[in-house]
Amino acid sequence: MGGLKGRDLLSLADLSTDEMKDLLDLAAQLKAGKIRPRAEVDGHVPVLGLLFYKASTRTRVSFSTAMYHLGGQVLDLPLHATQVSRGEPIADTARVLDRYLDVLAIRTFDQQDLKVFAEYAQIPVINALTDLEHPCQILADLQTIQETFGGLSGLTLTYLGDGNNVAHSLLLGCALVGMNVRIAAPEGFQCDSAIVEQAREIANGNSDILLTSDPIEATTGTHVLYTDVWASMGQEDLAESRIPVFQPYQINDDLLSHADKDAIVLHCLPAHRGEEITNEVMEGSHSKVWDQAENRMHAQKALLASLLGAV
Amino acid sequence: MGGLKGRDLLSLADLSTDEMKDLLDLAAQLKAGKIRPRAEVDGHVPVLGLLFYKASTRTRVSFSTAMYHLGGQVLDLPLHATQVSRGEPIADTARVLDRYLDVLAIRTFDQQDLKVFAEYAQIPVINALTDLEHPCQILADLQTIQETFGGLSGLTLTYLGDGNNVAHSLLLGCALVGMNVRIAAPEGFQCDSAIVEQAREIANGNSDILLTSDPIEATTGTHVLYTDVWASMGQEDLAESRIPVFQPYQINDDLLSHADKDAIVLHCLPAHRGEEITNEVMEGSHSKVWDQAENRMHAQKALLASLLGAV
Amino acid sequence: MGGLKGRDLLSLADLSTDEMKDLLDLAAQLKAGKIRPRAEVDGHVPVLGLLFYKASTRTRVSFSTAMYHLGGQVLDLPLHATQVSRGEPIADTARVLDRYLDVLAIRTFDQQDLKVFAEYAQIPVINALTDLEHPCQILADLQTIQETFGGLSGLTLTYLGDGNNVAHSLLLGCALVGMNVRIAAPEGFQCDSAIVEQAREIANGNSDILLTSDPIEATTGTHVLYTDVWASMGQEDLAESRIPVFQPYQINDDLLSHADKDAIVLHCLPAHRGEEITNEVMEGSHSKVWDQAENRMHAQKALLASLLGAV
Repeated sequence: MGGLKGRDLLSLADLSTDEMKDLLDLAAQLKAGKIRPRAEVDGHVPVLGLLFYKASTRTRVSFSTAMYHLGGQVLDLPLHATQVSRGEPIADTARVLDRYLDVLAIRTFDQQDLKVFAEYAQIPVINALTDLEHPCQILADLQTIQETFGGLSGLTLTYLGDGNNVAHSLLLGCALVGMNVRIAAPEGFQCDSAIVEQAREIANGNSDILLTSDPIEATTGTHVLYTDVWASMGQEDLAESRIPVFQPYQINDDLLSHADKDAIVLHCLPAHRGEEITNEVMEGSHSKVWDQAENRMHAQKALLASLLGAV
Repeated sequence: MGGLKGRDLLSLADLSTDEMKDLLDLAAQLKAGKIRPRAEVDGHVPVLGLLFYKASTRTRVSFSTAMYHLGGQVLDLPLHATQVSRGEPIADTARVLDRYLDVLAIRTFDQQDLKVFAEYAQIPVINALTDLEHPCQILADLQTIQETFGGLSGLTLTYLGDGNNVAHSLLLGCALVGMNVRIAAPEGFQCDSAIVEQAREIANGNSDILLTSDPIEATTGTHVLYTDVWASMGQEDLAESRIPVFQPYQINDDLLSHADKDAIVLHCLPAHRGEEITNEVMEGSHSKVWDQAENRMHAQKALLASLLGAV
Repeated sequence: MGGLKGRDLLSLADLSTDEMKDLLDLAAQLKAGKIRPRAEVDGHVPVLGLLFYKASTRTRVSFSTAMYHLGGQVLDLPLHATQVSRGEPIADTARVLDRYLDVLAIRTFDQQDLKVFAEYAQIPVINALTDLEHPCQILADLQTIQETFGGLSGLTLTYLGDGNNVAHSLLLGCALVGMNVRIAAPEGFQCDSAIVEQAREIANGNSDILLTSDPIEATTGTHVLYTDVWASMGQEDLAESRIPVFQPYQINDDLLSHADKDAIVLHCLPAHRGEEITNEVMEGSHSKVWDQAENRMHAQKALLASLLGAV
């Protein structure tokens, strides 16, 4: 198996290609019920802490259920219930939680905060979403693509919309598994150039990376169409003004007609029908969004099992 | 046993008389410790989601403890922590939760929202309270009556106060088990006529249903006196103005003297002593309110065990 | 073992010296992994309720993890989610929770509220922090001192700062185990005289109790230096004005030089570096604050195991 026992997952770039493939295979086995690992640490049930700076149903429920299925326990640590919100240095909170918990998933804004947690806590720390990356989402996405097409290498994924954390992790994740990735974003909403550079290094010529503002160019012949809301939680006031800018990037039947005939459509949810995706496409035969949502649980179960040494 | 595996419980009218009797017998066996079922779904511990549009200690604690005793896990999903509160269609939330959870108990306002959840989620959906019905409360009430009197059929229950969700579910539940039911409510606070009609159909002449505004008529010779707060959570501003209207419906020693000498008094709690019930009656020998509260746990454990196929 | 099955722990004064020693020995055995008790009540997993009038990460996480390690479950009962916050008498809430839960830890303000809970609930009730006492913190503190020095009797502990709940429980706890205790607090911030009197009675001449406003006198030759924030949660507006009053009580290298050369420094956290303790001391070789934080979990696990009859 290899296994990631005791490691952190702050970025998909923390994984080698083989480690990523092992994780995705493990996730598929877990989903199929072929193995049912039970995690244990020092003779007791392991406890996962969910330290969330902002609320998230899907992330919280999928992580919690994954941990429960492994026989573990989960502690919600919303920011307002922690001393961090009252000015305690992250280094102190990290050192205390490290003494109680066995693994910690953090949803925060600043990737740097995550790094401080990982530095001061010896237990595995998981990036459950930052402004920069969203690695667990992409594990589920790749699992969904692999179970649809039977493999990953050589396929093309097109992301349309804001060059955000999801786009960043898609760049890194696709590069790791040898998929071509195209990001179609409006001017001013392009991906972080350091992440793009990192993805190119990981790809090392084995997959193509295209950044464009042309949705048709990005979509032509692609196997996976992917989008996200145009304004994230906390940016709702921007949503209205962004609509005209992002309208050409909407996934609708017309855009879909440029993709491969067997292309699938992914969305990390929640979806704003009529904005980044039409209701027709969302509910249509190409949509794999519910399987993709389900795979959050399986992929994160694979990750937790591996980090806890349960496989 | 019969068993309700995979079913929903949106209303007591979803149950047949035999199914209701089986549930109540199961609840009694669980309370007596005669059986200790362990629930399991696909080889892992099952997870109950509690999606609550408004907070509730008793409902949350009794459901959680019931599920824990069955060896399961529980996830709190307060509305503010879900995408529903940010405008995600219920159909989407339902389809996502369906992929993670094994059973879902919902406390909401509109019975129609509950139906949408049940339509889009394949897992069992339980009505944990709506403005229209409160089936789980009535399961506990009937368990309490049965353990006191040794049976249900032919007994008479009198509900005094607002013709609310509790009154509605008492109508349906008593009709199902062959109990006579009398609702004494002030003019303008009568039960929903569609529910009354439905109860009469279920009763099919096997039990009497009386709607009245006369508390003495309703109480004379009854075996069970039942009340609820005069203004529910969220209606606190109405409480003051309702007092003179509801005063004649207060359960006090005087009213109790009209009931059967072995009559018991129930209240679904929290109680406002001096309003719908006096302290004397609440703490007196006829009161079964603490047993009734405890039975929430046993009755819901029976329901969960049955829906999950653990019995 | 002795065991505290079915008992309450509202104050350290509820314990005999032998019971305290047994608890500390049990905590040490649990930490070393020499025993791994599994709690069970009536054939099912026991459920711990955490009824918290104000939030607390450390207390919540350490109690939850302790209970999980014992194979139990935990229910958070934040005040706003209980009927107490809507005016239900504590006696009613206590009687209802008693029917569902197996043990209840309460963090409240008024020690009297705690007593009412304990009176009406038959299950064990634990003081998880009141304005008067903080017994669970002191169990962890004594465990930390014992594991450092190999014993307790005859050692001297010095507490510097506000004569608060932590100081009170240190007085009682040290008296119970035969440690000398010195409280150095500014005029007007001395300990409650009834608690001091109670501690003197428990000490019964076997340990010295010194109350002073002189930090040097209190520190000279001491084995344990202990402090807490100068203004507790909810008193933040007082913090600024208290700084000049409390400045002489700061634990810094200068004050530390008056203590025994092997003295350890404790702090119940969170720490305000530069106020009650310097960063140098906090991060220095005498500091045992992270071990002390970890011991919350072990000490409370010992307490829970004993109250639930699992040892």
